[in-house]
Amino acid sequence: MTLDLSLLPDGGVSWLDASGPEEDIVLSTRVRLARNLQGRAFTIRASAHDLDAILECVAEAGRATPQLRGVVVFRLDGLDRLDRQLLHERHLVSKELAGLEREGGARHAAALLTNGDIGVMVNEEDHLRIQVLRSGFAIPEAYAQIAQFDGDIGDRVSFAFHPEFGYLTSCPTNAGTGLRASVLIHLPGLVLTKEIAKVLQGLAQVGLTFRGLYGEGSEVVGNFFQLSNQTTLGKSEEELLDHLGKIVRQVIGYEQQARDKLQRNAPTVIADKVWRAYGLLRYARSLSFEETMNLLSAVRLGVGVNLITDLSVYTLNKLLIFTQPAHLAARADRPLGDPELPTMRASYVRRALDEDAARQQKPEPGTDQQP
Amino acid sequence: MTLDLSLLPDGGVSWLDASGPEEDIVLSTRVRLARNLQGRAFTIRASAHDLDAILECVAEAGRATPQLRGVVVFRLDGLDRLDRQLLHERHLVSKELAGLEREGGARHAAALLTNGDIGVMVNEEDHLRIQVLRSGFAIPEAYAQIAQFDGDIGDRVSFAFHPEFGYLTSCPTNAGTGLRASVLIHLPGLVLTKEIAKVLQGLAQVGLTFRGLYGEGSEVVGNFFQLSNQTTLGKSEEELLDHLGKIVRQVIGYEQQARDKLQRNAPTVIADKVWRAYGLLRYARSLSFEETMNLLSAVRLGVGVNLITDLSVYTLNKLLIFTQPAHLAARADRPLGDPELPTMRASYVRRALDEDAARQQKPEPGTDQQP
Repeated sequence: MTLDLSLLPDGGVSWLDASGPEEDIVLSTRVRLARNLQGRAFTIRASAHDLDAILECVAEAGRATPQLRGVVVFRLDGLDRLDRQLLHERHLVSKELAGLEREGGARHAAALLTNGDIGVMVNEEDHLRIQVLRSGFAIPEAYAQIAQFDGDIGDRVSFAFHPEFGYLTSCPTNAGTGLRASVLIHLPGLVLTKEIAKVLQGLAQVGLTFRGLYGEGSEVVGNFFQLSNQTTLGKSEEELLDHLGKIVRQVIGYEQQARDKLQRNAPTVIADKVWRAYGLLRYARSLSFEETMNLLSAVRLGVGVNLITDLSVYTLNKLLIFTQPAHLAARADRPLGDPELPTMRASYVRRALDEDAARQQKPEPGTDQQP
Repeated sequence: MTLDLSLLPDGGVSWLDASGPEEDIVLSTRVRLARNLQGRAFTIRASAHDLDAILECVAEAGRATPQLRGVVVFRLDGLDRLDRQLLHERHLVSKELAGLEREGGARHAAALLTNGDIGVMVNEEDHLRIQVLRSGFAIPEAYAQIAQFDGDIGDRVSFAFHPEFGYLTSCPTNAGTGLRASVLIHLPGLVLTKEIAKVLQGLAQVGLTFRGLYGEGSEVVGNFFQLSNQTTLGKSEEELLDHLGKIVRQVIGYEQQARDKLQRNAPTVIADKVWRAYGLLRYARSLSFEETMNLLSAVRLGVGVNLITDLSVYTLNKLLIFTQPAHLAARADRPLGDPELPTMRASYVRRALDEDAARQQKPEPGTDQQP
């Protein structure tokens, strides 16, 4: 089976368009709900027959909801590793569902149901992992969307629910609301001013946790942090989201203060850092993913503080996703190793920045007219 | 007194035009003759009255030669330190004549006579240090020019000459021909292939010596080496120059082999190095002189191996000279310190590269059209 993401509007990454609130600091908001079908064994204990039945049941119910109109079902267990990796790089499925670290690849009947708006991972750790990803800082909007879908699909299947514990999940840390919300936030100012450690410590004290670009177990690169709530039990969905939103709002404030401070105290250092990163991205012939992330981070900061005025956040977002190994391999239509991969990455980056510059139809960003 | 280099054609740096042979590897050829007036104390022992008389005598004789038509006399002892430094940065006078490391500045009656073609430093270590600087690898041409002038001025003044020892000089290492010839050569290939140490050792064995951009005591930066003959005594001018020419020709060959090898064995590494350097020069907001030299070295290599096709060697040469502190201060019309100096340098570099790109009237060098 071959993956055809063209079936999805915008390839399933419409959130990259940077249309949401605070889009230069908060890349995206993600809300997910863990749900399990009543009367069925949890995924890890389910037989192949059970897994098939779970998928069939969820797909049928999903198709019947108005929110999943036009849904496409991607069976992960029928996909090559590169295709599974691509779905993961695109934030459409978890590493677990893609079976990237699992012997034998994706689990039997592991699937993604999505129409680009709402995604349902089936037979992940839980039977259903419903997720909504939106551009910018948009917790209430994302929650409203997912809650409505949760209600509509819940009318068509019975979820395992306990009056005292709430929704039952495979891992007890998810029980209760089954909710996890996270924002992907870019904090270069706090990193440069070395205030980040203090901020991250503060998060832990108020029940929030941070991760890298790809969630649990992924490293922080390019100063991108995923901030999320740590508990799902004992509080209502609204309380959890409200709390997360308030804290994220504070972190955005700290980041803006840090940026102001940098601009005030070390304008030349910041400008130099930002423009060097831009120059390297525009001209390098070989780029590792990590270096690309770090350079994009500096350039994104430059856009945020108005040093770079003619580069779109959309292009920067796109580069985060499309410079990853499986995406580059998909473009080349074959697996890529060293030194081809970093070379293709650099070539892709140059082209994307050139196209963006051409679209802006302004003079070259480097050519300020000072004497 | 204020320095007015506009009195000289091309500001005295016509050799920057990259018109000479092998101009992408050999920046310039310099030949100088040390001469002293007969019957006068050497400079270090001369009184102020003597020094005045020496200058007067040399200036009068110089003006009468056809080669020094339009000569301008710059009195170093009347110039501010920045102006003296500027003349030195422009390779028109030695550090000694400029008095840059001398308490009280330039020596009394220290002067430069030049019309842009030929320069005569008066009251340097010797009464006269005649020098010719030409673009590219041009030893015979430079020598022919200086020899004719030496003959013509020698008809008008008597030089201290001993039938056995030849021309007498303040320091015995210069006695005999009083000749020193040097080429400023760019050897990034040999540095990158790590063959440079072997080549430099070989030079010592055949009586050649190497120095940095600014001659004696200056460090090697940006892979620019000054190669020159070590002895002036016991051989004729022609033998000395012929020997230097042959060795330099060999070194050029080694450098070309090293570049071929790099292009063959590590094309991506070289392309990446070259274009990153170009990107940094075009976008950095703060550049130290040393970093600038190193980046220019990589870009120059890129032009030499045809990776960069639309950038002139003239622009690269100009940047070597005009990014130096006194030159930047002269542009700003005031002394510059940190962080202004590296900021002005970066601004100057960006502008020069932008202007060059505009002159070439081709698409941006970074925007190759590969898919």
